[in-house]
Amino acid sequence: MMATATPRPGGRSARVQQAVHQAVRGLLEENDGDRTALSVPLVAERAGVNSSTIYRRWGDLARLLAAVASNRMLPEQVEDTGSLKGDMEAWFVPYVEEFSSPLGRQVLQDMLADGAVTRDYFALMQGHVEEIRGLAEARGETVPEAGEIVDAVVAPVIYRILFNHESAPDLRVQDRITRLLDAGTAPAVRD
Amino acid sequence: MMATATPRPGGRSARVQQAVHQAVRGLLEENDGDRTALSVPLVAERAGVNSSTIYRRWGDLARLLAAVASNRMLPEQVEDTGSLKGDMEAWFVPYVEEFSSPLGRQVLQDMLADGAVTRDYFALMQGHVEEIRGLAEARGETVPEAGEIVDAVVAPVIYRILFNHESAPDLRVQDRITRLLDAGTAPAVRD
Repeated sequence: MMATATPRPGGRSARVQQAVHQAVRGLLEENDGDRTALSVPLVAERAGVNSSTIYRRWGDLARLLAAVASNRMLPEQVEDTGSLKGDMEAWFVPYVEEFSSPLGRQVLQDMLADGAVTRDYFALMQGHVEEIRGLAEARGETVPEAGEIVDAVVAPVIYRILFNHESAPDLRVQDRITRLLDAGTAPAVRD
Repeated sequence: MMATATPRPGGRSARVQQAVHQAVRGLLEENDGDRTALSVPLVAERAGVNSSTIYRRWGDLARLLAAVASNRMLPEQVEDTGSLKGDMEAWFVPYVEEFSSPLGRQVLQDMLADGAVTRDYFALMQGHVEEIRGLAEARGETVPEAGEIVDAVVAPVIYRILFNHESAPDLRVQDRITRLLDAGTAPAVRD
């Protein structure tokens, strides 16, 4: 997973990746995030590599932007705060603050241009959810399925960021987490 | 809403739009959907307009692709099937079948390139949900909030299409609708 995004550190391949990613980030900043101002020859010149190196390794500009985006998007690490609710908030609240900004939204969109990068990223997020579930289960808490957490908390937030440009406060991440956990601990049927 | 996407039919502006959209669709088909094979001059030549017309009207290639995508995406109309469940299925099941295909996914991604187009589209979807709710309320059915329908049915499906390339059967749209409606009619608290 993420194999192409993290070559052996220190090798030539890693140095090329670092230079090219840095060139992309620099050019995006200088052009206020305007993708149409970038081209493979421009990135190659800035990074000090041949255009053919970029084409061979990334395929095209859209896929290169996706790779840079994916590297930016490595989300918060999971930490043990002592409760499922606390762990989910510590993981997802800073994530939403970052990716509901115009830059964060653009990073999400860039990432979508490469299906392989996107699916690796989906798996990574799912892995974090599983890690959070594992911590809670070890504490003896009742834990919703990973798919349910993705559907009830992650998906609506990302969908609303991408399609309706909603801000972090409007997205009410903490309410969504509370509602999911309350539903999970409520009796499923009345007797 | 969608004002720029639907100019007065028959006018010069409408004819330009039709020619340019058709040129984009034709070029995408000939290049197996490869966006990098397209350029504004190429589209202009095919459509028989000046490149400057395209730049003035759409801004850049990404925004033009977004406009074409948005036109493709006009979703199923709402129809009255006699029940909320039936109306939601009739509206959303064919939608998901279309947009979980590789072409449909690409259309969704293209649309995301223009924030104004995307937000119009979000509003259009929300409008359809309100229409479906109105029909059900008139029949005396219990109806979840529009935001709840978006969060529980639309968002997880679109998120999983975009980020995990899930197929229509995997997305289990009918199950999601059933679960939402069952939750809505179940007693909220036990007494």
